Amino acid sequence: MRLHELSTPALLIDAPRLEANLATMATAHPGSTARPHVKAHKCTALAARQQAHGHSCFTCATPREVVGMAEAGLGADLLLANEVLDPHRLQAMAEAVRSGTGRVTIAVDSDETIDAAAAAGLREVVIDVNIGLPRCGCAPDDAGRLADRARALGLAVRGVMGYEGHLMMVEDRALQRKQVAECVDRLMVAHALVGGEVVSGGGTGTYDLHDRLTEVQVGSYALMDTAYATLGLPFAQALYVLGTVVSVSPQWSVADVGLKSLGMDHGNPSIEGASVWFCSDEHVTFDPKGLGPQRPGDRVRVVPAHVDPTMAMHNEAWLVDGDEVVDRWAIDLRGW
Amino acid sequence: MRLHELSTPALLIDAPRLEANLATMATAHPGSTARPHVKAHKCTALAARQQAHGHSCFTCATPREVVGMAEAGLGADLLLANEVLDPHRLQAMAEAVRSGTGRVTIAVDSDETIDAAAAAGLREVVIDVNIGLPRCGCAPDDAGRLADRARALGLAVRGVMGYEGHLMMVEDRALQRKQVAECVDRLMVAHALVGGEVVSGGGTGTYDLHDRLTEVQVGSYALMDTAYATLGLPFAQALYVLGTVVSVSPQWSVADVGLKSLGMDHGNPSIEGASVWFCSDEHVTFDPKGLGPQRPGDRVRVVPAHVDPTMAMHNEAWLVDGDEVVDRWAIDLRGW
Repeated sequence: MRLHELSTPALLIDAPRLEANLATMATAHPGSTARPHVKAHKCTALAARQQAHGHSCFTCATPREVVGMAEAGLGADLLLANEVLDPHRLQAMAEAVRSGTGRVTIAVDSDETIDAAAAAGLREVVIDVNIGLPRCGCAPDDAGRLADRARALGLAVRGVMGYEGHLMMVEDRALQRKQVAECVDRLMVAHALVGGEVVSGGGTGTYDLHDRLTEVQVGSYALMDTAYATLGLPFAQALYVLGTVVSVSPQWSVADVGLKSLGMDHGNPSIEGASVWFCSDEHVTFDPKGLGPQRPGDRVRVVPAHVDPTMAMHNEAWLVDGDEVVDRWAIDLRGW
Repeated sequence: MRLHELSTPALLIDAPRLEANLATMATAHPGSTARPHVKAHKCTALAARQQAHGHSCFTCATPREVVGMAEAGLGADLLLANEVLDPHRLQAMAEAVRSGTGRVTIAVDSDETIDAAAAAGLREVVIDVNIGLPRCGCAPDDAGRLADRARALGLAVRGVMGYEGHLMMVEDRALQRKQVAECVDRLMVAHALVGGEVVSGGGTGTYDLHDRLTEVQVGSYALMDTAYATLGLPFAQALYVLGTVVSVSPQWSVADVGLKSLGMDHGNPSIEGASVWFCSDEHVTFDPKGLGPQRPGDRVRVVPAHVDPTMAMHNEAWLVDGDEVVDRWAIDLRGW
C-alpha cells in the first residue's frame, strides 16, 4: 500500500528513523540498563522492536499498560512507575504475574499504596522517591521506613526510583548536568536506606547524564516530538500525523488534522515549510509558505508537539518507509 | 452503583444538570431551530436525550459521527459541517443514507469537494461559506457559482452554512452582537446567491444572538467546560473527570487525572476549592487549599477546560445523580 491510499488523519511512524533511534539508545544503554517507557507509544508492536534491540525490561504508567504488555508476551520484567490504589486493577496485575512467566513491580510511596499492593497479592515493589519534580514519591528520608513496612507485609523491595521530569527540557547542558546530579544525590540517600539492586530514573532528555542509575526510563526517544527536538539529541523525528488538505483560500489552507488527533499540552504542532496558525477539533489552519499553493486533496505531514498523548488518541499507526506503507500497528495499550 | 466504586479516571456526566441544559436550549431554540453538534460529546446516548428534548436534526464533524448516528437510529437529518474528499468515507455516508430512512447533507466549499460528494453518490449539500474564521468555507461571492456546479452534477443544494467560531469567546456582549451580525450579513449575501431553505451557523457562545439563521449548531451547551463557563451563559457545568488521590506531600497532592484524559488545548483543568499546578500524562498536581489535607484514596472532581477533546479521550461516561451512578454511556462516535 502507498501513503496516498491511507484515510486521514493517519498516524505515521517512519520505520528507518524508528530503527535508528532504537539502535542509538541500545548502544548508549544496552540491555537491562534501559527500561523503555511504553507510555510514550502504548503499542506492543513497538515494544517488541525495543525488545529486539535488547531491552526486555519495560516501564509502564497504567495498569492497562502492564496487563497488555503481559498479554502480548512482553512481561518478563514490568515496572509500573506509578501509584495505584484501585484493588481491581492491582488484582488484575497480580493475576497477570500468576498466569505468566514474568514479574510485575509496582511503585509505592505511602503506607496506603504499600498496603493496597500487598492486599492485592502483588509481590514486588520499588520505593518511589521525590527527587525534585512536584508529583509522586516520598521524601528521601522516609524511604527506609516505607521499605521496612513493605517487607513486613511480605513484599520484596527491589530498590528505588525517582524521576527528574522537571529537568528534561533544560537547554543549558552544564546546568542540566549539575541539577540532575543533585536529584540523583537525593535518590542515592533513599537507596542507602532502602537497599535493593534497582536504582531507576531518568528520561530521554537526560539519558546521557546518568552513571549512578542501574537503568534509565526512556520513552520519547523512539518517536520524538517538536518539544524534544529543541534539545539537539541524537534521535530523529519519526512520528507524523498525515493529513489531507480539505479547504484552501488565498491566505491559508486547512487540513484534517485537528486537536482530537494531536497532544496539545505542549502547544501547536508543526508542518515543515509551513506556518501553523491554530488547531480546531478536526482542523489545522496553516500558511503554506514554502510548501507553495495547496489544492484540496494534497497531503501534509503534521509533526506533534508531544508524542505521548498523540499516540493515545489513535487506534492504529502506519509504519512507513518513504512512500510505502509497510505495516499497521495497533495502539493497543490505550486506556487505564 | 455509587461513585466511590468507579475506577478512575472516570468521565462523569451530572444527569440533572445535563437535563436542565438540554431543556434551556430546547426552550430557546425548539425542534429543528437547533441542530445539536455531536462533535461536542461523540455519544449517541446523549444525542438521544437531545432528540427527546425535541431536536431530530444533528450536526456532525466526521464521517464516523455521521455513520454512527445513522446506525443508532438518529439519522433523520444529519449535516456533516465539514469538507471531506476521501471517497471511501463519502461512500460510507452515502450507504448510510441508502440503507436508512434519513438524510445526510454534506458541506462543500470547492469544486473538488462538490465533485467528490457527487461521485460518491451523496445527494444533498450545503455551501459552506467563510464568514470570518480562518478555516473552511468559500468566499461569499463564490457561493452561487459553487451551488450551480453542485446542481449541475445532480446534487440538491439545501442552502448555506457558516461558523463564526472566532466570536464564541468575546466577553463584551454588545461587541459580540455587532460582530456576529457582520458575519451573518456575509452569510446572507451567500444565501441570496445560493437559495435553499437552510441558513445554518452559530454555536453555544452566540446561541442567543441569532434571528436570521434557520438553525443553530450548538454543542458545548449540553456539558460545558471552564472556557465557556467564563461567559455567564445559562448552562451549568455537567462534565467532570473523577480522580483518585494517589500521592500526597505537605505542599501538594496528586490525582490520577492526567493530560491523556483531558483536552488540554484550552489549558489546565480546574478543581473547585483547589489550585491546579500542572498536568502530566497520568497525573494532575494541585494545591488542595480549601479542600483541606488530602489522603491517598480520596476522590476529586476535575473540570475540563475543553469539553470536545475530553469526551474524545474516553471510552465511556458515567451518568451520575449526586453520589449515585445511574447509567453508563458509550462514547461511541470516536475516531474518523
